Amino acid sequence: MISKSVISELEDIAGRENVLTDYAYTFVYSYDATQLHKVPDVVVIVSNSKQVSKVVKVARKHKVNLYPRGSGTSISGGPIPAEGGIVLELSRLNKILDIDTENMIAVVEPGVIAAVLDAEVAKRGLFYPPDPGSLSVATIGGCVAEGAGGLRGLKYGTTKNYVIGLEVVLPNSDIVQTGSFSLRGSPGFDLTHLFVCSEGTLGIITKIMLKLIYPPKKIKTMLVMFDEIESAGIAVASIIENKVIPSTMELLDKVSINAIEDFNRVGLPRDIEALLLIEVDGEPEDVDKSAKVVEEVCSKAGARSIEVAKNESERNRLMQARRSLFPVLARLRPTTITEDATVPRSKVPSMIKRIHEIKDRYNLLIGSCGHVGDGNMHPIFLTDKRDKVEMEKVEKAVSEIFDYCIELGGTLTGEHGIGIVKAKFMEREFKKEGMRFFSDIKKSIDPQNIMNPNKIIMAKDIKVDYI
Amino acid sequence: MISKSVISELEDIAGRENVLTDYAYTFVYSYDATQLHKVPDVVVIVSNSKQVSKVVKVARKHKVNLYPRGSGTSISGGPIPAEGGIVLELSRLNKILDIDTENMIAVVEPGVIAAVLDAEVAKRGLFYPPDPGSLSVATIGGCVAEGAGGLRGLKYGTTKNYVIGLEVVLPNSDIVQTGSFSLRGSPGFDLTHLFVCSEGTLGIITKIMLKLIYPPKKIKTMLVMFDEIESAGIAVASIIENKVIPSTMELLDKVSINAIEDFNRVGLPRDIEALLLIEVDGEPEDVDKSAKVVEEVCSKAGARSIEVAKNESERNRLMQARRSLFPVLARLRPTTITEDATVPRSKVPSMIKRIHEIKDRYNLLIGSCGHVGDGNMHPIFLTDKRDKVEMEKVEKAVSEIFDYCIELGGTLTGEHGIGIVKAKFMEREFKKEGMRFFSDIKKSIDPQNIMNPNKIIMAKDIKVDYI
Repeated sequence: MISKSVISELEDIAGRENVLTDYAYTFVYSYDATQLHKVPDVVVIVSNSKQVSKVVKVARKHKVNLYPRGSGTSISGGPIPAEGGIVLELSRLNKILDIDTENMIAVVEPGVIAAVLDAEVAKRGLFYPPDPGSLSVATIGGCVAEGAGGLRGLKYGTTKNYVIGLEVVLPNSDIVQTGSFSLRGSPGFDLTHLFVCSEGTLGIITKIMLKLIYPPKKIKTMLVMFDEIESAGIAVASIIENKVIPSTMELLDKVSINAIEDFNRVGLPRDIEALLLIEVDGEPEDVDKSAKVVEEVCSKAGARSIEVAKNESERNRLMQARRSLFPVLARLRPTTITEDATVPRSKVPSMIKRIHEIKDRYNLLIGSCGHVGDGNMHPIFLTDKRDKVEMEKVEKAVSEIFDYCIELGGTLTGEHGIGIVKAKFMEREFKKEGMRFFSDIKKSIDPQNIMNPNKIIMAKDIKVDYI
Repeated sequence: MISKSVISELEDIAGRENVLTDYAYTFVYSYDATQLHKVPDVVVIVSNSKQVSKVVKVARKHKVNLYPRGSGTSISGGPIPAEGGIVLELSRLNKILDIDTENMIAVVEPGVIAAVLDAEVAKRGLFYPPDPGSLSVATIGGCVAEGAGGLRGLKYGTTKNYVIGLEVVLPNSDIVQTGSFSLRGSPGFDLTHLFVCSEGTLGIITKIMLKLIYPPKKIKTMLVMFDEIESAGIAVASIIENKVIPSTMELLDKVSINAIEDFNRVGLPRDIEALLLIEVDGEPEDVDKSAKVVEEVCSKAGARSIEVAKNESERNRLMQARRSLFPVLARLRPTTITEDATVPRSKVPSMIKRIHEIKDRYNLLIGSCGHVGDGNMHPIFLTDKRDKVEMEKVEKAVSEIFDYCIELGGTLTGEHGIGIVKAKFMEREFKKEGMRFFSDIKKSIDPQNIMNPNKIIMAKDIKVDYI
């Protein structure tokens, strides 16, 4: 429990109305999209980096844990106040400070919603490519902290490829600037990217500089149906071999396709085994040429049929169907566990095969989708947290998937972060030496281990329940 | 001085023939392209990461400084053994371990020469864009450690944008892996980019994973002559405003143009004030369209004339002229000091103006060139180290240039590193808090401060002489 003096110091910083201790309020900040939860002792709603620095000072003085929070859309348990303490609510730091069209750079506060930034940037004829599924809700701060990706990663990269500078409040309460308005800057080791994907474990991001680009002039959206999931894998590899880099290359398996049809009725054939949603974009002539290559390659790989979106509204319908996938899958069973195994592109077919084999062996319901162009697979476990026997099977299946993912040269996450749910797997990927290095960095920056403890690096095994 | 027991331990690790202590040999490892120098106590030539780890262990045990070294082409004093100790010669770690065409990733040892990698990658139909001026000599390890850039940064980014994973020997002698074969990987804070631009101050890079791309299908090279340097600045901004992102956009001023003509006779008019060397690349139709935009925009900005390379050999002649710039400028006066001030693109005209004003005020000879598309200016001081009075003026001029660069929102280096020559300016850019953060990270990873000490972070003022 947090002492009254901590509360009163927080009230002095943020104002009494911005310090929440009533269970009815604190409960709201107890969970994220994993459905895991733990109610914090107190929530502080801050408005600027100076307040953040002061809150950090209080947390340090009293050795109280501090959990930064955006919109809470994480699916790795990143913002969950697992060991109690202060939730630092950052959504009021929501100003777009600058969209510099000459230098093609945006400067934003962490609480800006991704879709809001997208729209403002688009108004000025520019483009911010990262597009996580949750972009209408997720904050840019959360996207940076978790390394959010999205559908356009293959051609455009993910959040980490666009962050060029930050303002960060360190655990020692210093407010530091990293990076600069010069895209090329390289003075000393990269402090900016130390915070990208750091999930709030090293400091609080209070300002973000993002690189912007010009939007593509034309987009072509194609839906390719396959009777065999292996054929889809072959198509993916040969599209890229044919020197076409689509902006989007999404795989959906039968379970996913049927879930979309159940709830959205897009008109997808329910009997196909796999579907590729492919977008090519760029200069109009190139787009037409690339689309032709995609069609040829997919036919050769054994596609049953290929549908090309004829206009913007048809495109929106298809993209919206894909974007609705997580919510529709979530309707199938009470508990959804979204995994994020990322393998080298060439290993996607092996990974798909293994996921299916594991699914059958454990007799589980798994919907698979993935940003297959860059090897990012999302096996989505549809289960029920109340069914202890099934949950144990899920746990074993997840563990096997990650073992195989690492065996293939892959990694534990492509865009969802490690959070609390995957910290236990980190040593498999980074070995003892790597984890020692992670811990050394963490210790040097946050010696008291109060910044979002036990995320990424598992200092101790903590039991967190489902909501 | 280093003790005999250190020498004998190093001999046990690398073999007697690979441990150099004779002045005639050690002298060779005393300098880089800055012409600053200090003779090391001993040079160890290693062949693999295990040997590196053992050498690190010896250095730590005896608290001896360790200076990793590639080809020594640095122009910031990065590899200079300024405080004596062991030079770790890495050029035998020169194997290309893998060029994975399916996943478009290369895995190399740090001693691989950049141009050798380029050629091997090209043979397989792939492309590694970073092209520092020294690419025929520089090692990839050096490029990663210094964040090397080159002419193609505007469109393609620099070395930092291509490094996706590393093997590093830490000062505690652990050999750790960072990153993975998955371009999207984001598990925890970014340990890979902590070493990019770290200049050997945090550990020794022993393996490098690089992202590769497809080469452009067509390149068009243009030479644009201007009577006013300001007009060139206007042209740069409006090319980008017109949504053309050239791969290369190089500015050369009158001093540079005449130096090239003096020694290379490319046929450039000697009376123009500025020249832009512009390359557009990509799909053939786009290249032609973009080139047309460039021509129109440059004419409107007041270009005197525009020359388009008609074939590959003409292109090579123009590019070679640009690439020869540093060597030809170096022939004008005994001492060359190459600076690397990088500003937001929109501030390039202001920076150019100020450099000229400073040059006139101090009556110095400065040749200016720059990767102006991404704001990276290279004022090159042509001076004489023996002329104490002039050298003092150079020092003041450099200091003023960086003050103004930072005032404009720029940074101390775009591609040459901080090394020993610019460590003293770091606090101007990063303030006290930022430098404390740099130091904290450095201390936690290298508590004895034996890894290339006093580079990037100036722990003490060290006098290093010119050769």
